[in-house]
Order: sequence, then structure tokens, then C-alpha cells
Amino acid sequence: MPNLPDPLVDELIAIVGSSHVLTDDMDTARYVGDWRRNFPGAARAVVRPATTQEVSRVVAACSARRVAVVPQGGNTGLVGGSTPDATRREVVLSLDRMTAIRRVDPLDNAMTLEAGCSVMSAQAAAVSVGRLFPLSLASEGSATVGGVVSTNAGGEQVLRYGNTRDLTLGLEVVLADGRVLDSLSALRKDNTGYDLKQLFIGGEGTLGIVTAATFKLYAQPRQVVTAWVAVRDPQAAVELLALLGTAVGERVTAFELIGRQALDQVLAHGTPGMRDPLDSGSGWAVLFDVSETSERMDPSPAVEDVLGMAMEQGLVLDAVLARSVQQGRDLWALREHIPEAQRLEGPSIKHDISVAVSRIPEFIAEAGAALEALLPGVRVVCFGHVGDGNLHYNQSKPVGMADSDFLRHVDRVHNTVHEITMAMNGSISAEHGIGRLKQAAFLQYKPPVAIDLMARIKKAIDPGNVFNPGRVLPCDLVNP
Amino acid sequence: MPNLPDPLVDELIAIVGSSHVLTDDMDTARYVGDWRRNFPGAARAVVRPATTQEVSRVVAACSARRVAVVPQGGNTGLVGGSTPDATRREVVLSLDRMTAIRRVDPLDNAMTLEAGCSVMSAQAAAVSVGRLFPLSLASEGSATVGGVVSTNAGGEQVLRYGNTRDLTLGLEVVLADGRVLDSLSALRKDNTGYDLKQLFIGGEGTLGIVTAATFKLYAQPRQVVTAWVAVRDPQAAVELLALLGTAVGERVTAFELIGRQALDQVLAHGTPGMRDPLDSGSGWAVLFDVSETSERMDPSPAVEDVLGMAMEQGLVLDAVLARSVQQGRDLWALREHIPEAQRLEGPSIKHDISVAVSRIPEFIAEAGAALEALLPGVRVVCFGHVGDGNLHYNQSKPVGMADSDFLRHVDRVHNTVHEITMAMNGSISAEHGIGRLKQAAFLQYKPPVAIDLMARIKKAIDPGNVFNPGRVLPCDLVNP
Repeated sequence: MPNLPDPLVDELIAIVGSSHVLTDDMDTARYVGDWRRNFPGAARAVVRPATTQEVSRVVAACSARRVAVVPQGGNTGLVGGSTPDATRREVVLSLDRMTAIRRVDPLDNAMTLEAGCSVMSAQAAAVSVGRLFPLSLASEGSATVGGVVSTNAGGEQVLRYGNTRDLTLGLEVVLADGRVLDSLSALRKDNTGYDLKQLFIGGEGTLGIVTAATFKLYAQPRQVVTAWVAVRDPQAAVELLALLGTAVGERVTAFELIGRQALDQVLAHGTPGMRDPLDSGSGWAVLFDVSETSERMDPSPAVEDVLGMAMEQGLVLDAVLARSVQQGRDLWALREHIPEAQRLEGPSIKHDISVAVSRIPEFIAEAGAALEALLPGVRVVCFGHVGDGNLHYNQSKPVGMADSDFLRHVDRVHNTVHEITMAMNGSISAEHGIGRLKQAAFLQYKPPVAIDLMARIKKAIDPGNVFNPGRVLPCDLVNP
Repeated sequence: MPNLPDPLVDELIAIVGSSHVLTDDMDTARYVGDWRRNFPGAARAVVRPATTQEVSRVVAACSARRVAVVPQGGNTGLVGGSTPDATRREVVLSLDRMTAIRRVDPLDNAMTLEAGCSVMSAQAAAVSVGRLFPLSLASEGSATVGGVVSTNAGGEQVLRYGNTRDLTLGLEVVLADGRVLDSLSALRKDNTGYDLKQLFIGGEGTLGIVTAATFKLYAQPRQVVTAWVAVRDPQAAVELLALLGTAVGERVTAFELIGRQALDQVLAHGTPGMRDPLDSGSGWAVLFDVSETSERMDPSPAVEDVLGMAMEQGLVLDAVLARSVQQGRDLWALREHIPEAQRLEGPSIKHDISVAVSRIPEFIAEAGAALEALLPGVRVVCFGHVGDGNLHYNQSKPVGMADSDFLRHVDRVHNTVHEITMAMNGSISAEHGIGRLKQAAFLQYKPPVAIDLMARIKKAIDPGNVFNPGRVLPCDLVNP
């Protein structure tokens, strides 16, 4: 399709140069669809500014014409929050050319990176000064600084180091009128008014465009004790976590629960050589890491103490500690292979919920019983970051059921899981955000007072509803 | 003065009972003045609700009559943010009857407390289940949950555990129209829309009234290594912090710099028996704590390694490690006595600034030179949380100068220190907030974009400017 003359596109070209304003479908393809392919879209243009000033001018140009701007990082989101809708009216603003590492300072334990840096390059920048940037997630090769900030990404080490919010000291943000909010300090303490950056962290690009961030750095761990533990049941997992935390404190870096169904699918579809580390056939496993900064202190004896005590108490049935880095990696490979194994097993219905850690066992029992009543034989693939109260609580179809029959139950399964989550004061989106995918559930379950405050904030900060309209908050709540 | 009939007071009495609405000056005295006595005030009434519902009804009654509400916790603030002005038009809403401990859960590592609980009782609640609530500050016997949340209090263990913001999982907040925002969950992960609670943390009571909070708990430390170290200069202190952090990670719980002038004032005015722990006469000392959760791992050898290395590098001149709990307390007593010693030394000009940790030495050099040029002989009392980049950077008069001559320089001294702080991208209020005391400096130094966004948020959330009007943001920026 030949492109019609478009004065906005001409203006964008004047700002960033013609090679960085994409309008042909071939060129825009990788920017307009989400990677789970739930939201095929089309863009009026994809614009790729190289500097904060260019972002500012692009945003001002779009705002002046009341054209929606969809900010995009690595496009690894799971909820349709960073791709355009199908109207071809929205402009995608990709940060992928803004990849400068502005500063890495080991004395400050801080670094400032532009939004388009990948998480992996952020990790490497920290290592270059002998420090750790602890954010780690499956998509880290593609996910970007701007993306993880805007979605408050979690990942594998939240238990020890927190979510992206906890790692963020400062932000640079372009506002809807093109102004730049610069709070890129490396300050650990600053009580001068409201902490504005918090709104843009997890704001899913609806309030401003994050162009750079200052992150905390940590000491590098020099020892890691990885254990695979067969536990009596989910309650035992939660109690083991408490024992471990009491004994070794914040050294507990990851603590994952793996249900039998999840492990069986991995063993059925995994790479050759993958095997149950314990051959115990037990129903529930825990995989945990205890990491230690000091070379002088070996955490293994303390971990072994805890496991011994937990065995005496009947919480732990059996356990194996990795004796080498490779053994540790092999144990983690089982955990990391679960999503792919579930995909190979057939269609699935997915949830990303959280509850208080103490309620994990109750959640698993109640949700399991409710789903079995709804859909007898349904296979629950339950795994996740129990240390954070966060479960990836997914369903595979009953053996022998047709895919289409199973998928007819999607809404009822979602409702069942979400109702139980909310009855326990949980969250229907612990990690992935709202975007478009979860907006209906968000509106259904979030308290009206909270929705109202969010709409007021959106209207106050982006009164023209320029940024990511219709994502998180529906347009009718915020349109000018 | 006899009280005139006041229909609002009658309404408040109907809500909370007559014994909890104070109007006599004798009764209101302890609520209407700040404890540094910078802001003598008078209240239309002091109202003391006992429940969130009562708070809601009190706020709604005041809002309906457009009467300002000043929320108050323990009234230990330093910037005039929690007491009424002198007009006798404002209602003080004290949370001092809301002291329930709603829940303490060691499996969740979380507890939910009402706003009027003191920090000390919060610490005790954590200990009752074998956990640590790490917030610790000089005023902890009086300072309350609602107060530390609303001011994002820091304190002595920020380096390891963060500010109050980092310790807060959820809040219950009464809004200006009386609605209650309930986000009291113990969730570690929740990405369902904007993180609203962040606005009320550090909001200084201008956006809502915090009625309860859910805090994180931590494992209790079982060992503490306390060291007093003579360092070459501030740069050596910063480098020692980096060495220590690299060796023992987050175990570094506190890391304080103490200038010679501060120590000399303590030795001159301290209790009998206080002495320089090193008799080295050196210019700069560091006092640090390394705390350890595990009983099985002794952190002393790692700390001694670091001190040995730092001596070889010429960073450390001499050092002493506390060999008992009492020795550790004695070392900390020197640090804690500094403010009182400075008070006994005469009038002082105070600052609560922060810069990035790496810029601390540069700040000390530049500010010291500028002040000496401004006021020859001025004595700089410099101490504080260097690990957080936060200095209490105070001045005592030159020896022999009259108090009144010294105090004539207050504005010039403030300006000098604040200009240098801002040139280093620092903060003019690291811990204490803005309130009324620092509003002029806040307006002078905070970027206009940030002030504008804060004003928009205030207008969006408290459109009637009912809560703490004129604190943080001046009324002309936000009045309806």
C-alpha cells in the first residue's frame, strides 16, 4: 500500500531523519505486533529518536496533533502494553537507538543508562566495575531499561533485591507536552516533595516516556548454594522459607515452588538428560539459591542445618545440594524449561497472581479444588516465586480433551482463579502488568477508589491522553 | 478565652465523643506547637478519632465546611509539617488513639499497624514474632507509624534496609472526601496500575491521612561488629565503604562519618568517661556496624581483612573493634551525643543534605572553603550517614563571636550550602522533608517541571486543598 502524504511524518522526519521514521509495513512489522501475537497492530509511523531532546520534540509534535504515542522498549511485554492498536492511527516511539551507558560508579553503587539498553547490557555494565545489577529475567537479552522500569519488572531475584522499583534511584522522563523531568540523581535519600518517579515506574508508558534511569548496584555474590528439595506440601515450602530466612537472612536469593505436573511436563518434553533430581516422585519441590558476598564465610553449613531441622520436622522429605556450578545450572534448567514444556504439552490458560506468602497453601488448595469442580481432570501447572507470594498458576487441558473444548473454558477458569485471588487480598497481575490484556479484570477487581485516583492522576499528568491511550485505564475514564 | 459556639466542633463531637475533641488551649498545647518551637500555632480543635471510619467522618465534615485538616502523629517533625498555623482556623487530626497492632505474621515477614503506634512499639511487635522491624531513629519512642510513612523517615539503618518507603508494603489512607483507599496487602509483587501508596509515603499529610500501614519484617541480626576507624580524609571514608561493601555486601548496616569538630564538642560536653576511642587526634573518624543474621558465620575476620587492606592502602590510620555489646554501645554513644553537644556549644545553623556518595569528599571540601570565606573561623560540625550520602552539615559560631552576630548569617550560610549541594545534583532535605521550614528553598531549587507535576497531583487528589494546606506546596499553586 503506497503511503499517503502525512504532514506529521514529515515533521518527525525533520526531527530524527528519514531513516528513523518507518512507515512501510515491512519495516514496522517487528514493532507493531506483541510477541505472544495476541494483539496484531499497525502504526501510522514508528519513530526512533536518538536523544532525549529528540524524544521531547517527537512527543510535542504528536501532542500538538493529538496523535497517540505508544512508547516501546524491547517489545517483550505480555499484556499488549507496548504495541499499537490496529487503527494505524498511533505512533510507536521506539527507544531502541538510545543505548548509551551514561555513567557507572562503583563508589555510588549506581549507574545511569538510557532507556534502550538491554537488561543484559545493564548487567554487563555493572560487572565492568565489579558490581551486580540484580535484575534477571527470561527476556533479558531483549527487554530494555525503559521497559523494565515502565512495567516494574520482577524476575528471579526479587526475594533478595526487590522489583525494578526497588532498584531505581532516579529517572529521566519526557512528559506529554515535551517537557523533560530530570530526576536522574544517584541519591539514596531525598525528601523534597512527592516522589514523582514512582508514578512512571510501573506506569506502563501511560504517564510519560522513560528515557533514562539510574539504578542501584550491589556487591557481587562469590558463592551460591543451590538446593532442590522435595517438600511435604506447599505449607511445608512456606515454613521452610521462614526457617531459611531466619537462619541466613537476605542471602535467600530465590525460592521457587515447582508442582509435580510442571516437573512431569518438563521431564516429558525437556532436553535429553533432564531428570528428576531426587527420583522421589514427591508432589512438590522447592528450588532455592542462597548467595553469599564474602569469600570468607561459607553458607553451606547453615543451609545444611536448616535442611536437617526441616527434615526432623517432616517439612522436607529429601534434598540435594548442587556441588558444582554446572549442577546448579542443571537444577535451574528444570525450572526455566517449564513454560516451554507447557507450550509443547498443548494449549494452556495462564495466570500471574500473587497473595501474601502465608496464604500460598490455602490458595493452591482452594483454586485446585474449584478448578477440578469446574473442569474435571484439568491439569494444574503450578510454579513460581513462592518467596514473593507470586505463582504462575496455569492450566493444561484434561488428558484426551479437544483443544477447542478446553479453550471454551478460558473465561470461567480466569474468573475462578481471580475470584479466589481477590478473596485473599491478592493481585491478578503480580509481574506482567495490565496493558490491554488484563484491563477487564483490572476494572472488575481493583477497588473503585483506586481506579478513580489513577484516572485523576492520568488526567493531571497527561491531560490530552497522548501516551498509550486505552492501556491500563480505558479511554472513557480519562479522555479530555 | 471562652469558646464560641462552633457547629463544626459539635459535629466532630457527634463523631468521636466530647472527650476527644479538644478546644481549650491547655488541652491542645501539646498538639499545636512543634517540638523545636519554630512554629507556635493554635487550633480550632484537636480531634482524636479512634477508628478509620471516624477519621473518614471527621475529614468529610471538615471538607464539607472547607476547613483545613492538619494530620498529626507523634509531633516529632522538624519542619513544621504537622502543627497548625496561628490562625486558629485549622483542625488538628491526631492519630494518637489509633494504636492497634492489627496483624504480625512471621511467614509473610509483614505486619499491619495503625497510624498511632510508635516506632518503638512497632519494633517490639516484630520482636514478638522473632523478626526485625529495622526502622530506628532518635525519636522512635514518640514518632508514629503514620508519621514515619508520611515523612518517609530514614534513620540509622537505611544503608542496609532502606527508608520507610522501602519498608512499606501497603497503606490504608483516608482521602479528602472521606473515602478510604485500602491497599493494606502484604503483597511483595503487584503490578495492577499505578502504585498509589507511593504518593502518600513522603506526602507529608498533604494528599491523604495514613491510618494504617503494612511493613516488611526482616530476620533478626545475631551478631554485630562495630568499629571506630580513624580515616585519612573523607575520600578515604568513601573508599573504605566500597571495600567493606564488596567484602561483606548488605551486612554493612550503618556507616557514619564524624568530623573532628563534632567529636571535640562531644568530648567537651559529653558525659563523664566519654573519650576519643583512638586518641589519635585524627581529623576524621568512621563508625560502622556490620550485622550478621547467621550464628554460624562470624563476620569479624572479613571485617579485619578489609581494615588491614585499607591500612596498607593508607586509607585507615587506626581502628578499634568493639569486643563487647557495651563497647559497641559506648562507641555509638559518641555519635548519638553530637546534636546535644552542639546545642550545649551554642547556637547552630543546620543542614540536612545529601549528594551521591562519591561526591561527599568534594562537597565537604567545597562547602568548607566557601563557609570559611563567608565567615572566617566558622566551625563546621560535619557528621552523618555517609553510606547514604546524607550529611548533617552544621555550623557553630567562630570562637568569640556574639550569638546574634553569628545568626545574622543564617540565610547566607543556608544559601551557600544549598547552592553547592544543588550544583552536585544533591538534595536540600535528605531526611526531614519540606513542611513549612524548607518551602522557600524547595521552591528555589526544585526544578519547575517537578513543582508543576506535584501541584497537578495535589489538585487532582485533594482538589479542595483540605489536607495540610500551605505545607510543601504553597497555597497559591494549588488552591481551587
